[in-house]
Amino acid sequence: MLEEKRAIKPGTLLFPNAVVLVSCSDGADKDNIITIGWPGGIGASPPRIGIPIKRQRYSHGLICKTREFVVNIPTSDQMHAINHCGTVSGRNHDKYLECKLDRVAPTKLRFAPSIGQCPISLECRVEAIWDMGSHDYFVGRIVIAHVAENWLGNDNRVQVRAEQLVALVSGNYYRLSEEQGRSTYS
Amino acid sequence: MLEEKRAIKPGTLLFPNAVVLVSCSDGADKDNIITIGWPGGIGASPPRIGIPIKRQRYSHGLICKTREFVVNIPTSDQMHAINHCGTVSGRNHDKYLECKLDRVAPTKLRFAPSIGQCPISLECRVEAIWDMGSHDYFVGRIVIAHVAENWLGNDNRVQVRAEQLVALVSGNYYRLSEEQGRSTYS
Repeated sequence: MLEEKRAIKPGTLLFPNAVVLVSCSDGADKDNIITIGWPGGIGASPPRIGIPIKRQRYSHGLICKTREFVVNIPTSDQMHAINHCGTVSGRNHDKYLECKLDRVAPTKLRFAPSIGQCPISLECRVEAIWDMGSHDYFVGRIVIAHVAENWLGNDNRVQVRAEQLVALVSGNYYRLSEEQGRSTYS
Repeated sequence: MLEEKRAIKPGTLLFPNAVVLVSCSDGADKDNIITIGWPGGIGASPPRIGIPIKRQRYSHGLICKTREFVVNIPTSDQMHAINHCGTVSGRNHDKYLECKLDRVAPTKLRFAPSIGQCPISLECRVEAIWDMGSHDYFVGRIVIAHVAENWLGNDNRVQVRAEQLVALVSGNYYRLSEEQGRSTYS
């Protein structure tokens, strides 16, 4: 394909995106879940992940206070939770309760619970918060990973069930279809 | 699903990922293309995108020198280029030539050409380079976007052809399958 292109005003036109459920706590009696559509791997060794959050969001204040969060990878049967946790505010909603999700106590963090129903949960400590204008970008150091038994091989290697994942494109959710090939690069 | 989870050593277990072709130049007579599997949106206003690159990669030196790059979104009929540009080094390969891709001169950047065959090309100026251990993380301010005519509506709004996109999961490429729903959040 070599279609003529048109110049348009700059936008963050990156597709497809992962969509994750980020759980956090106020360090006392409140916790919350926020849907994040632009998570990014930012390093492998040590493992780090970044998430942008708008300043007015309830979770923004919680994560600034406790400096920890959990990235939970959802599956396509959790579409309701993905949508609900991105739509209503934790200021007046208990999203764990409303989405029938289980709080699981952290093993390395102090406060932020992970989501029992998500097959992968990454406990993260905040290393930096970068002002990105519309968003603050939270750089999280992954301190431990929790993976569902049926997503693990005997050697503790993760076997991702790609057919259960969700991708986000311009506000629409998609599942992945059949494998197209294996990469040879690293 | 509520499967028991097992704690494993931390890794950047984020799925699915976009995969992009990043083009760059040495500011003189050499250019290159590198495949990046962890691009991330890091801000909307102003629009910013981040890409991690290992220090030993040829493109790392080029982008440090010129402080510019282009993020090109590939389609599933470019699987060979996606793989090739992530496997061989620009030190001794002309990837545009080998992948039969067209260099398109930038309109806002000084040097880095974009890839004619990719439906979206985002010209980026480097605003920051963050040391992330195994990788340097390049923060790019998107200064202009070029979008294929058949990915645009009459109002210059991008109409992503999701069925042409590629997602990366643990080194395997996938296409997206049918739409699962529309998000209500922002």
